[in-house]
Amino acid sequence: MSTKYVYRFAEGNGSMRELLGGKGANLAEMTNLGMPVPQGFTITTEACNKYYDNGESISPELKEEILANIKLLETETGKKFGDTDNPLLVSVRSGSRASMPGMMDTILNLGLNDAVTEAVARKTGNPRFAYDSYRRFIQMYSDVVMEVGKSYFEELIDNMKTKRGVELDTELTANDLKELADQFKAEYKAKIGSDFPADPVEQLFGAIKAVFRSWNNERAIYYRRMNDIPSSWGTAVNVQSMVFGNMGDTSGTGVAFTRSPSTGEPKLFGEFLMNAQGEDVVAGIRTPQSIEQLKEINPQVYDEFAQTAKKLEMHYKDMQDMEFTIEEGKLYMLQTRNGKRTAVAALKIACDLVDEGLLTQEEAVNMIDPKQLDALLHPQFDDAALKAAKPIGSALPASPGAAAGQVVFTAEDATEWAKKGADVILVRLETSPEDIEGMHYSKGILTARGGMTSHAAVVARGMGTCCVSGCGAIVFNPDKSFTLNGKTIKEGDYISLDGSTGNIYAEKIPTVDASISGEFGRLMGWADEIRTLKVRTNADTPQDAAQAVTFGAEGIGLCRTEHMFFDPKRIMAMREMILSKTADQRRAALAKLLPMQRDDFEGIYEAMQGLPVTIRFLDPPLHEFLPTEKNDIQALAEDMGVTVEAINEAIVSLHEFNPMMGHRGCRLSITYPEIAEMQTTAVIEAAINVQKKHPDWKMVPEIMIPLVGDLKEFAFVKNIVTRVADELIAKSGIELEYLVGTMLEIPRAALTSDEIAREAEFFSFGTNDLTQMTFGFSRDDAGSFLGAYYDKKIYENDPFARLDQIGVGKLVQMSVELGKQTRPDIKLGICGEHGGDPSSIEFCHRVGLNYVSCSPFRVPIARLAAAQAAIRNR
Amino acid sequence: MSTKYVYRFAEGNGSMRELLGGKGANLAEMTNLGMPVPQGFTITTEACNKYYDNGESISPELKEEILANIKLLETETGKKFGDTDNPLLVSVRSGSRASMPGMMDTILNLGLNDAVTEAVARKTGNPRFAYDSYRRFIQMYSDVVMEVGKSYFEELIDNMKTKRGVELDTELTANDLKELADQFKAEYKAKIGSDFPADPVEQLFGAIKAVFRSWNNERAIYYRRMNDIPSSWGTAVNVQSMVFGNMGDTSGTGVAFTRSPSTGEPKLFGEFLMNAQGEDVVAGIRTPQSIEQLKEINPQVYDEFAQTAKKLEMHYKDMQDMEFTIEEGKLYMLQTRNGKRTAVAALKIACDLVDEGLLTQEEAVNMIDPKQLDALLHPQFDDAALKAAKPIGSALPASPGAAAGQVVFTAEDATEWAKKGADVILVRLETSPEDIEGMHYSKGILTARGGMTSHAAVVARGMGTCCVSGCGAIVFNPDKSFTLNGKTIKEGDYISLDGSTGNIYAEKIPTVDASISGEFGRLMGWADEIRTLKVRTNADTPQDAAQAVTFGAEGIGLCRTEHMFFDPKRIMAMREMILSKTADQRRAALAKLLPMQRDDFEGIYEAMQGLPVTIRFLDPPLHEFLPTEKNDIQALAEDMGVTVEAINEAIVSLHEFNPMMGHRGCRLSITYPEIAEMQTTAVIEAAINVQKKHPDWKMVPEIMIPLVGDLKEFAFVKNIVTRVADELIAKSGIELEYLVGTMLEIPRAALTSDEIAREAEFFSFGTNDLTQMTFGFSRDDAGSFLGAYYDKKIYENDPFARLDQIGVGKLVQMSVELGKQTRPDIKLGICGEHGGDPSSIEFCHRVGLNYVSCSPFRVPIARLAAAQAAIRNR
Repeated sequence: MSTKYVYRFAEGNGSMRELLGGKGANLAEMTNLGMPVPQGFTITTEACNKYYDNGESISPELKEEILANIKLLETETGKKFGDTDNPLLVSVRSGSRASMPGMMDTILNLGLNDAVTEAVARKTGNPRFAYDSYRRFIQMYSDVVMEVGKSYFEELIDNMKTKRGVELDTELTANDLKELADQFKAEYKAKIGSDFPADPVEQLFGAIKAVFRSWNNERAIYYRRMNDIPSSWGTAVNVQSMVFGNMGDTSGTGVAFTRSPSTGEPKLFGEFLMNAQGEDVVAGIRTPQSIEQLKEINPQVYDEFAQTAKKLEMHYKDMQDMEFTIEEGKLYMLQTRNGKRTAVAALKIACDLVDEGLLTQEEAVNMIDPKQLDALLHPQFDDAALKAAKPIGSALPASPGAAAGQVVFTAEDATEWAKKGADVILVRLETSPEDIEGMHYSKGILTARGGMTSHAAVVARGMGTCCVSGCGAIVFNPDKSFTLNGKTIKEGDYISLDGSTGNIYAEKIPTVDASISGEFGRLMGWADEIRTLKVRTNADTPQDAAQAVTFGAEGIGLCRTEHMFFDPKRIMAMREMILSKTADQRRAALAKLLPMQRDDFEGIYEAMQGLPVTIRFLDPPLHEFLPTEKNDIQALAEDMGVTVEAINEAIVSLHEFNPMMGHRGCRLSITYPEIAEMQTTAVIEAAINVQKKHPDWKMVPEIMIPLVGDLKEFAFVKNIVTRVADELIAKSGIELEYLVGTMLEIPRAALTSDEIAREAEFFSFGTNDLTQMTFGFSRDDAGSFLGAYYDKKIYENDPFARLDQIGVGKLVQMSVELGKQTRPDIKLGICGEHGGDPSSIEFCHRVGLNYVSCSPFRVPIARLAAAQAAIRNR
Repeated sequence: MSTKYVYRFAEGNGSMRELLGGKGANLAEMTNLGMPVPQGFTITTEACNKYYDNGESISPELKEEILANIKLLETETGKKFGDTDNPLLVSVRSGSRASMPGMMDTILNLGLNDAVTEAVARKTGNPRFAYDSYRRFIQMYSDVVMEVGKSYFEELIDNMKTKRGVELDTELTANDLKELADQFKAEYKAKIGSDFPADPVEQLFGAIKAVFRSWNNERAIYYRRMNDIPSSWGTAVNVQSMVFGNMGDTSGTGVAFTRSPSTGEPKLFGEFLMNAQGEDVVAGIRTPQSIEQLKEINPQVYDEFAQTAKKLEMHYKDMQDMEFTIEEGKLYMLQTRNGKRTAVAALKIACDLVDEGLLTQEEAVNMIDPKQLDALLHPQFDDAALKAAKPIGSALPASPGAAAGQVVFTAEDATEWAKKGADVILVRLETSPEDIEGMHYSKGILTARGGMTSHAAVVARGMGTCCVSGCGAIVFNPDKSFTLNGKTIKEGDYISLDGSTGNIYAEKIPTVDASISGEFGRLMGWADEIRTLKVRTNADTPQDAAQAVTFGAEGIGLCRTEHMFFDPKRIMAMREMILSKTADQRRAALAKLLPMQRDDFEGIYEAMQGLPVTIRFLDPPLHEFLPTEKNDIQALAEDMGVTVEAINEAIVSLHEFNPMMGHRGCRLSITYPEIAEMQTTAVIEAAINVQKKHPDWKMVPEIMIPLVGDLKEFAFVKNIVTRVADELIAKSGIELEYLVGTMLEIPRAALTSDEIAREAEFFSFGTNDLTQMTFGFSRDDAGSFLGAYYDKKIYENDPFARLDQIGVGKLVQMSVELGKQTRPDIKLGICGEHGGDPSSIEFCHRVGLNYVSCSPFRVPIARLAAAQAAIRNR
């Protein structure tokens, strides 16, 4: 038997994507469900390859197979190619295995010629529609099939408009359009040398060849290269009969949802217009009717539609968003897809579908987009107020939620104003660790510089505070004000920020607090039963830790110790430590920090109630702690009893060309072992104190050495830790276990993980830095070129937001495998920003990590994503 | 048969290192050669393990085996343990499989007691020597075997010196020492509770156990952990009879070489002293005699020594450095090893050994340390003058050779003074690309900042100019002078630099020019026949290229295009390009640069005479080209017709936090495709012009896109290159091939090399940046902590000088394998600093690269190292 190259929709199904392309497979699936879809057939991707093998021609056998299918289509529809009574008109569309939006060609209304157009005009009672369709068809066909440029036709339209003294295409009459169609055909003849083909069969083969050819047009080739799609896949061609909702008063068109997309309420929602085309519903010239009114106009069609909707929902097991057309009293389904919905609706629909027995709990868990949960965890703008507001600018949606407040320009002012009861929005060029307290007191944060992973963005997400970052259009004025797109905002003026869209408003928009409904808890409960990946949080304060526990965190995966030192009460001792000339001076300064740091850890342990806590030793380059302002330098000099010059010299000597790759992380403990000694003391003494207070908890502090690249580096610091810790524990009179591991964030550490695992008891992947080093660019500087990378389709995702599984992921996977070779029970986690990103979480599940750690407000997202990862990877 | 745990030296051989340890195997080998070595035996490493398995005790069987061997030794030597006529004294030393210098214990003169010491005093006629040996033995034994701290004994010595009113140990008389020995024994008894053991057998087992125990002392464990030596290896124990060169006038001791270590002249060189111990020869109190004089004193011993020397040279096939002792007219060989020699001697010896039929050419090639060749390629100080000079400081030996000249402090002054005929030494805080011309005119370069791979170091090595870098002790004064360790040097003062030692002299030391003798050429010829790895050079100018060709370079592996833009005549156009607001402005500025760049390439192609040339597109971040001085900014503003503020703003906007990981490399061509267009035009037009001029050459320019991390990035730039190049070639009327490849320097590129090789026709490993990213530290900043890393034995080598084969090498190897999977004939090279380092070159050979590329003055070193790599990896 020879190969079958053409499939009627009824012959295919949803699983035949490779052969029929995405669109063809989908049309077949609908047909199989018994939906009234306008019928047609799909010419396979294999036929496309054969077309090219054949020297770009359609073989006689294929031609025959296509014609036989046209015959079947004519029989099925009762319409006929070229018939002046009931003409068959078809669309011819490409459809490849992978979605390639806009890359290839489409021809509509094929089958029109002078006589048929006349007939359509008559039948629809709408000659303008008929002739507009006709002139569009000629133009499209000439362009796509015969490659006569569009511009010639557009010139003719312009001439016609000038002649008629009108400005818009829509102002041309049916007669004008008929005349244009004649002119178009003349133009075609002038350019091509023969008459425009009146024969629909000739038109059809021209169109099919054009679609095949479009597989190799320049933009398709470029798109394939950029998206790694082999040219051998080929494209299928879909030939589908056209239906019209504007054929008179028994025709119409509409869109509907099977449940409310805003609330999830389980009833049909939608609207329609009689005697109209799809674009009329959208255009808003006529007011559409509610879907319920269709019941009165045509109860039979309404019932059929309602049943179809129900059936589609049952089949896809999800709320559907449908398009339909009624042609002369007959219902046609043009499209169905899972409907978009609000977060609230998503949860209600999922729970309802379980209660209705349509979904298992697992399926319900799987259908929620984890990112949507974000909206439930933060305040949002009042819907009506938001609709009335107009943004004055927008920038990066760096941390979700909505905030309204009075503008302040320094962290100190933020704290002061907030303490007096004001809601404040902190506006800064960029934030730095010294701003932490002010950021805590702000309702929202707006920065002019910095990307999604800038200091402001990272800290704000951690705090659950709304943040819009990188608004380069902001110009700061000298008089405590800023100008954005012509609008000047002074200190104390109200602005509002939408951290989910990045919009900035020059007014106070009321916000409504987040409410976590009962469905939220139900769904999370199901998720927790399914997932195998633990979810921890990144938290540096008892407040953040407690917040994360309420969101379901099962431990702290990253407690950064450096943020604690920026507190004004502590920074002085920190600076003394940094500027010490001898180990003894340094020890003396560290001794001042020890009790504070021990208190911090006790607070965090208490908040975590015995759950595991991973504490990372001091990481940033020391100059980050040094003063930059003249009076701070003066104060430090006085405090330390040295000259201002000496301080300035020290600051210069600590300058680094590339601080990200400088003297930081474990390198600090190697040059200054006193730092590791003090931090070990704080971690262990705090654990001993808390353990004594809560004998029923099992304290096992996890000490994490950052920026390790070599076993010996790690072993050196671990030696310090175990020496100090073992002595303290022996003195304490109680037993205390602790773990020493590393933040795995240097490519070399991943490459030599078998060695490092000899000493390290856990790895926590620090994928922020690992991404920076693996790609060779710094987050802080990448902004200057990443825009061009997205524009030119070189990157599709921000590798700092979504783990690059090809490159960085390969290193992570190598590291996991090598680490387990040496230490099969090694504890593995991730604590980079990626720990809260669903696709990255799935990757973590797949490579066998034990936990992910993310900012408190991402914990529910991570719990859900982890459950979905478990389901997908069974 | 039970396991044999003890081997007489005569029973072992050089290959039994695992069982006998390094020292034991070596003593056995000498014995097998029939050398007169003081006899003894080795207790195996297995015995050590058994000792531990046995609960740290020596089994009766092992005891017996040892005693049997003592008996044999007594028979062999005619000496006897405890004998007062001819006492046997032995040394007991550890000796593990791997060298662990100073980690474990040694006991000398074992066998002494009161009676034996008396006998030795009598026999040697040197009671002072006898009692000094005795008190040392008691002290050593007490410390090592019984763990009585040394301090008690040292206190007794101090008391004795006070009592005698002397300051030095050597001023104590034989009687003093005898009294001390008595005091030591009393101290031993007081601490241990029993008499000091007079029985040599008891002493022996005590010592053997102590050596076994020392395998697990704290510093040995630490050393093993740091050097990855398994504790299961154990240590062997060597028991060897002692011989004394100070037993009277028929005894003596000396050292000698089989050939001259300075010139290679093939005759015995050396010196000796009669009635002396080894330390007397070294101490310089008595003047040693030339080895030839031994012929007169004891012709029989001389002949035996000369024959032994010859035999050793024949056996080891290399010039030997030997130590010997004559005890009562009998010759003992104490040590032999391959002798250190000058570069000149090394070449002569190698060639002579070939001519004498002792070595094959291949063996001769293999015996030269490639690094030694450096000395032959640069000027050196006059030997005598150097000996008389005293350095005032020293820093990093950043680029070899010697230089003397007058100090200048700016590159401009260097150029100006040199043009007037002065020899100048350029002294800078650090150099930058703008200093290139002045560096070219300098005889030597001294910097206060920057490591072995700082700008100054890299550029100086490329130029073959002497450079000492990173001299942090330099303090610059405001009056054109600097102070180093208290000595102030003014502009115009003479200093001298030794780029091979890092020494700095405050005087003019005469230099002698390098001379490449005939042996040099002969040996390089042999090397070239053996090696399979090609050797290219890194060169940015026709001068450097021509220099490299004379040194044997087979192409250019890295031509950096950015250095060309720092020329004062060009920098203005470059700055205009950078500050352009539109693509058109940018194109206009680039158009000014095009003819200059095309001329550069023509010059380089001409110098290379048709050999392959790899040209790297613009790489550094653009701000490196911008002015920093006020008047330069002023000039640029005037030239561009904009305000100074506008220029300053642009400079600020180009600031980067981590420029090394910023907007540079191919990222420039992605944001500004015009740059790639201009550079492609220059590369291809130059090649067309040169090809037309030399039709017999086969020009194949290789265009290298730097800093690629993703296939799409590379493909984007390659598209620009091929579009521009193909059009130019089509227009030219000639045929021209060209290659487009990448500088592989980003970890992600290595991880995804299979993808990148789909488009890239060659990879050139940029191991400088690859090392930075893989380790996560920048060369410019690592100076602040690498010192601590070496001190603490965390790193043994500078990873920028010697390729880290474990981590970075793993990435290189992955990349090679993945690249070849996709493109089996992909051209592979290395162009980082490592391309001139012998151990790294061997790695390159092993992983299958096609070529290494290094600075011109390293080309001969690379040729030799490549040959050695080929030999070792057959």
